[in-house]
Amino acid sequence: MPRSHGREIDTLIQLLAKLPGLGPRSARRSALQLLKKKDSVMLPLASALAHVAEKIQICDVCSNVDTHNPCHVCEDNRRDQSIICVVEDVADLWALDRSETFKGLYHVLGGTLSALDGIGPQDLSTEGLLARAESGAVKEVILALNATVDGQTTCHYLAERLASCGVKVTALAHGVPVGGELDYLDDGTLAAALKARGDVK
Amino acid sequence: MPRSHGREIDTLIQLLAKLPGLGPRSARRSALQLLKKKDSVMLPLASALAHVAEKIQICDVCSNVDTHNPCHVCEDNRRDQSIICVVEDVADLWALDRSETFKGLYHVLGGTLSALDGIGPQDLSTEGLLARAESGAVKEVILALNATVDGQTTCHYLAERLASCGVKVTALAHGVPVGGELDYLDDGTLAAALKARGDVK
Repeated sequence: MPRSHGREIDTLIQLLAKLPGLGPRSARRSALQLLKKKDSVMLPLASALAHVAEKIQICDVCSNVDTHNPCHVCEDNRRDQSIICVVEDVADLWALDRSETFKGLYHVLGGTLSALDGIGPQDLSTEGLLARAESGAVKEVILALNATVDGQTTCHYLAERLASCGVKVTALAHGVPVGGELDYLDDGTLAAALKARGDVK
Repeated sequence: MPRSHGREIDTLIQLLAKLPGLGPRSARRSALQLLKKKDSVMLPLASALAHVAEKIQICDVCSNVDTHNPCHVCEDNRRDQSIICVVEDVADLWALDRSETFKGLYHVLGGTLSALDGIGPQDLSTEGLLARAESGAVKEVILALNATVDGQTTCHYLAERLASCGVKVTALAHGVPVGGELDYLDDGTLAAALKARGDVK
């Protein structure tokens, strides 16, 4: 096969194609874009990657991914230390934190229970969560898991385990997403929203 | 604003968001994916970027982007040195070369003439192309420009300039894309395909 560019560029394209959201085609476009913006994007990206890779740590307390250990969240004294929000993944933690409505701490489970995938409680950081809940400093645990079958199974399992810790256990509300149109919602969401209806304020 | 992760991670996300096809959301997903696959993707990507950035060169002959100068295409003696395929961008060169149907050389214009954007012949590598066409080694110049207004304007301009070089000047055929459905094609394409109809072989 004729080669229009060097092997190093191929390697770069193959690595870029491993990013979520980038296929082989967009990886090639990205590589070309990077080559054209060598000084403004390519070199800074290379050093940012190397820098973060070197400094990255998993928070011993909540399993967040950060360049500090404990992470920025756990380290922040202005946060309410008595509420823990349990999330499935670091991405969920970041998403919730971007909404800027929650000022407590987090706990990253690292997945959900799944009979199909053979993921049991020992594969998640449940023991760490129970230890934190039992420490006495925590008053409420919010289970912010995905509204999927596995997420809800995990939610019920954790609620049961946490019942004996003497903490209040809550879960995210189900309902119509803000900006959502009823016509496009599934029956389950509509049923949940109807069941949890409240007075108009 | 509360911070759920370090500044270095923010920098990485912002740089990733500059890649085409990645928005802020997918850049965050990419960053998390990279953090999880530190050794298999993140560090190799960092070194590939740094390595390619260091070695990258623009080919003096055809303006291809490569780690060699002259590039792999111009260096390849098995290629037909008498045909030059003129493309707008390096991405087009790579796309044509992937199809493995063209075994000649290329010439990257670096854009198209555009009255709106104020791009004239002096902003493109037209002089380099004319010099190559006049060298005596070239028999045919294929104008493989985009089928846009600017592409076709550039095509006509180059055809006129090349007329005096004593080379055959051709352009890509217009027609129905392979696998294309007539119902979804625009009138211009259908008209071109009809006009250029050929005998059934």
